[in-house]
Amino acid sequence: MSLTVVGSIAFDAVTTPFGEREKMLGGSAVHFSLAASFFTDVRVVGPVGEDFTEIELGVLENRGVLTEDIERVPGAETFFWKGHYEYDLNTAHTDDTRLNVFGDFDPKLSEASSSADVLFLANIQPDLQRRVRAQCQGTRFAALDSMNLWIDTARDSLCQAISEVDCVLINDAEIRQLTDQPNLARAARLVMEMGPKAVIAKQGEYGAALFTPSGFFALPGFPLEDVRDPTGAGDSFAGGFLGYLDGESGPIDELALRRAMAYGTVLASFNVEEFGTERVARLTRDEIDSRMEALRTMTDFGVRNA
Amino acid sequence: MSLTVVGSIAFDAVTTPFGEREKMLGGSAVHFSLAASFFTDVRVVGPVGEDFTEIELGVLENRGVLTEDIERVPGAETFFWKGHYEYDLNTAHTDDTRLNVFGDFDPKLSEASSSADVLFLANIQPDLQRRVRAQCQGTRFAALDSMNLWIDTARDSLCQAISEVDCVLINDAEIRQLTDQPNLARAARLVMEMGPKAVIAKQGEYGAALFTPSGFFALPGFPLEDVRDPTGAGDSFAGGFLGYLDGESGPIDELALRRAMAYGTVLASFNVEEFGTERVARLTRDEIDSRMEALRTMTDFGVRNA
Repeated sequence: MSLTVVGSIAFDAVTTPFGEREKMLGGSAVHFSLAASFFTDVRVVGPVGEDFTEIELGVLENRGVLTEDIERVPGAETFFWKGHYEYDLNTAHTDDTRLNVFGDFDPKLSEASSSADVLFLANIQPDLQRRVRAQCQGTRFAALDSMNLWIDTARDSLCQAISEVDCVLINDAEIRQLTDQPNLARAARLVMEMGPKAVIAKQGEYGAALFTPSGFFALPGFPLEDVRDPTGAGDSFAGGFLGYLDGESGPIDELALRRAMAYGTVLASFNVEEFGTERVARLTRDEIDSRMEALRTMTDFGVRNA
Repeated sequence: MSLTVVGSIAFDAVTTPFGEREKMLGGSAVHFSLAASFFTDVRVVGPVGEDFTEIELGVLENRGVLTEDIERVPGAETFFWKGHYEYDLNTAHTDDTRLNVFGDFDPKLSEASSSADVLFLANIQPDLQRRVRAQCQGTRFAALDSMNLWIDTARDSLCQAISEVDCVLINDAEIRQLTDQPNLARAARLVMEMGPKAVIAKQGEYGAALFTPSGFFALPGFPLEDVRDPTGAGDSFAGGFLGYLDGESGPIDELALRRAMAYGTVLASFNVEEFGTERVARLTRDEIDSRMEALRTMTDFGVRNA
């Protein structure tokens, strides 16, 4: 069991109605790997600049994330994203994006990274996703995330990338946009016809829905009275989801996918409680199990009390 | 066991991307009572005009709905609503509303109507809701629906009406608007502090969430590849929900509310498959039970297969 994630390692500047941070650790691969680290060995692949210090590396390593494949680019700065949220925390408004080290990133995976059982291609340019995918031939399960930017600017490459993975996790509006199909169930079926056997529609505070050839499954977002920063929620979901699938020894069947959805929901819910990685960095397995049990209780209507 | 609903009985003109109807039976009390009729005896209270014929009455009576308390107003026309939907079926665009008989409606309930065990105050002016509520003193459970119009124009009366019922069912955006609180969990708690012990946030295709003092429960919308007309989905949900609660002999506890949410979800899903009342008018109990079982399967992640 081993899990490789390729994606952004970033500094984020984030303002929400509940506070702000000028420069904090972020990025899709970071949120993903912290969440997945509770279930399996995670290896992060991605570039950082000279401004990336032992402090940020320590956040990952304290959770046991394997960081040897983080590539330090001399004379360059780490990917930077600045954004803010209004009271509607479902919508991120981007104020600045500096690709920095990501501009010339050409992923070359180590032997250890490329032999992963499970692979996550976080939301990066689809050509890059495909170059990584081509280096990982022995995966049990590969998944990708994407976004409207790539649907607009690199649709053909994205469709090809999708055809090469087992699972797609994207926002539900983007599934509709990608397929030009307003009905989500139909849109998900069209994505499955491209190749993947599972499609996960991320729905922000409404949770997430799983479409497979054999069924449909959905979970609400975990209800929280205090949501401070939704940045990274989707990647934390993916980390809980794929981390669980890799960590479990059993087959990746319908029920495993559903339980993985529940772990994804739980990890995403912790992520948004505080800024950036602050909450997940000090999360415990007991807290995860306890919220998992709460989620199960919240979705049960099958049996009446005696 | 007996259920009274007060609300609109209407003619609707509806256009969706999948077809149109120039004048069809509609209205909140109609959609509600057809859905509830599968579980209990439903009595409809509301005015109609001289244009309301035996054909429309027959749709209700064929489902066993008790129509003696429908008030026929001489020389007047039935409430009329005209609207359309774009590809985003979550948003209804109103093109015309004619109150007609509803302009002077002053509900006076019969002995049979006012002695109901369960009462639903569908989305009408809150002063009217309160006048009806005052006539029904022996209810086990009373619920109301409302909308942004009344939050804007009759907030005090609406808050008073809310304080007099056991359960509020409104769209989640309206719960936030009513309480001026963007976080749904907090907003629901504020509504409970007004009096109700249950708050249901209707979330369109994302389903519905139930907040009670003891817990949270949510169900996704039933995934459908063919949604033709969402008009009346919320009222069909309420009908399945309250119909089940009235029809069951047991206590209205947390589990009963959850099972009622599931029946609401199922009835709403049938409602949207065709225009107006067309689908629910010929629905069978077997179809309901079968979809209920499918919904249960779709939300189960508790037990791994052997």
